Amino acid sequence: MGKSILEYETVDLDESDGSIVIIDQTRLPARTEVIKLRTAQEIWDAIYLLKVRGAPAIGVTAAFGIYILAAQTADEILHFEDKASNSFFDIFYDKFKEQKEFLNSARPTAVNLSWALERMDRVCRQAHKAGKNLNEIIELLGREAKEIKQEDIRVCRAIGENGLCLVKPGDGILTHCNAGQLATCKYGTATAPIYLGQERGYNFRVFADETRPLLQGARLTAYELHSAGVDVTLICDNMSSMVMKNGWVQAVFVGCDRVAANGDTANKIGTSMVAAVAKRYHVPFYVCAPTSTVDLATPTGAEIKIEQRPAEEVTEMWYKERMAPEGIKVYNPAFDVTDNELITAIVTEKGIARAPYKESLSFLCSGGK
Amino acid sequence: MGKSILEYETVDLDESDGSIVIIDQTRLPARTEVIKLRTAQEIWDAIYLLKVRGAPAIGVTAAFGIYILAAQTADEILHFEDKASNSFFDIFYDKFKEQKEFLNSARPTAVNLSWALERMDRVCRQAHKAGKNLNEIIELLGREAKEIKQEDIRVCRAIGENGLCLVKPGDGILTHCNAGQLATCKYGTATAPIYLGQERGYNFRVFADETRPLLQGARLTAYELHSAGVDVTLICDNMSSMVMKNGWVQAVFVGCDRVAANGDTANKIGTSMVAAVAKRYHVPFYVCAPTSTVDLATPTGAEIKIEQRPAEEVTEMWYKERMAPEGIKVYNPAFDVTDNELITAIVTEKGIARAPYKESLSFLCSGGK
Repeated sequence: MGKSILEYETVDLDESDGSIVIIDQTRLPARTEVIKLRTAQEIWDAIYLLKVRGAPAIGVTAAFGIYILAAQTADEILHFEDKASNSFFDIFYDKFKEQKEFLNSARPTAVNLSWALERMDRVCRQAHKAGKNLNEIIELLGREAKEIKQEDIRVCRAIGENGLCLVKPGDGILTHCNAGQLATCKYGTATAPIYLGQERGYNFRVFADETRPLLQGARLTAYELHSAGVDVTLICDNMSSMVMKNGWVQAVFVGCDRVAANGDTANKIGTSMVAAVAKRYHVPFYVCAPTSTVDLATPTGAEIKIEQRPAEEVTEMWYKERMAPEGIKVYNPAFDVTDNELITAIVTEKGIARAPYKESLSFLCSGGK
Repeated sequence: MGKSILEYETVDLDESDGSIVIIDQTRLPARTEVIKLRTAQEIWDAIYLLKVRGAPAIGVTAAFGIYILAAQTADEILHFEDKASNSFFDIFYDKFKEQKEFLNSARPTAVNLSWALERMDRVCRQAHKAGKNLNEIIELLGREAKEIKQEDIRVCRAIGENGLCLVKPGDGILTHCNAGQLATCKYGTATAPIYLGQERGYNFRVFADETRPLLQGARLTAYELHSAGVDVTLICDNMSSMVMKNGWVQAVFVGCDRVAANGDTANKIGTSMVAAVAKRYHVPFYVCAPTSTVDLATPTGAEIKIEQRPAEEVTEMWYKERMAPEGIKVYNPAFDVTDNELITAIVTEKGIARAPYKESLSFLCSGGK
């Protein structure tokens, strides 16, 4: 028996060689491959190619990433013979900003990527302002990146506790894509209530949408919940309507990549369809969102940029042979926006937001409770 | 350049050797393989394994099937030395009924299978009653089977004309699964308005749901429409909500496997989800149904038996490797039922039925117009 998938760290730092360690999620569930990232290009590729994915895990990877890249830059600078101490920070910070912009360009929709990079940037600037030298700045960046990871774990657990209040033992829960442990550092967001419920004998029956085209539901969610002993049933995305009509679902929990100030929520493509169907069958639809995913600067979902991805993901990527004719046009948005009116509540680590979201989200994000 | 897929017959009879000729649709679009069916088991397998699929094409295959099997039985009987003329028909008809039941068991949801077999049975009984001998009965069965095929072509064309009244040039049309030429003998049902519009320069923009798990939309609909030069864009099933929200769809056309007396409609899994989303975005949702698919003996959708299919279709069938963990539970219904209140109209060859469907369908089925 090998290690359970839940015993691996989704994202970790190897301080012995200054690298990021991740599970290559594009190979799951067939193979569990742990890979190391050291260069900016490797980190960018890992995010773009979804080797690491899920808004919170992307945030942590970006924080670790900008930290190890900054450490590399500092090393190079500190090897200069002619150390014109005043110019050190400017050279360093120019490179820092360049790498920050580069990492930030890997995926446009999840706010956590830019959120984590901004937070690291702030630490950098403040430390410089406070007169810290490069070594000290690097140390502070490392501390901040590790804190972002630890926060993610605490935040997911708190989302789990809050979400658990919304369901009862024996309930059927449907989830879309993977907002699981593999999308975060522990517990997941949408799966956090499920894992906490599992610890407490709630015996949920979970339905996992397979989530085309990249099959995160089949490959990741079904896999991690099954590994944890949760009663999980895999369905195709087009079956959730039937499962709800059958009366098998008492709540939908999904994650999110960006929540606009009015509660409109960008999440994996297909989420808005689940929400529309849940509304029809009177099944409550809950978005699980760390407050870091709430973007008060974006007024509504209409302003959220939706990433478009290659046609090959749909036509041939996983298949033995092409599953669509050569030359066919494909529309392949990675996300969609769920209108706030379809969302029963947004579950954050600081509490549960309900409509009107403009007020409830702004209250929770400014401290809450 | 090979033949276009539209130049092949979906189902045909080869009278030179008494076989059914079909395209093996499980190999499309990668390979166009024409195969012959002669035994009851081969015909059953072809239907069960979806080598031939689509309610109308299944009906034609069943009619051809029971005809060639009856001809085989008659051949055997007529070779008997001791021709006890009175017992000929009884022996023949026992075998006929046995084979009819067997073919009918291949798939439970589409009514056309039992409809075509019943119709052939009726011809058989009436001919016997009218004093026809076995050779004459076989000839009448052959004539009826060929008439069922010709009717299918006329019916699809009439559905196309009726459906075309509901849209205008330049419209965006979304369809689910394959209710195309490959599901019928020509034109298709849901695609009939598209093909007729194409002949008349309507320049529709069509969106084809890929239709998991068997990908009939990607493999068949996108393929046949693309071959016909129609502007078609392939999407995953979970993208239709976004496409409609974008304002790109002015009508949804789908086929059906059984329409209950009250208008509830069984069609490929996922259809009800498209209908729910279409309702939300005020996009008219049209079911294209030969009246042979309307089953007035089934009062509502709740009485329609939904076929459950193997888990492997979802977890591994098309893939380079398994896309879900070993041992995972899978729910894999082949169809779902769309509630009549989500259906804007049902387009038949005899006219367009609108709510209340109990009255409009019964009127059209009893002659119409």
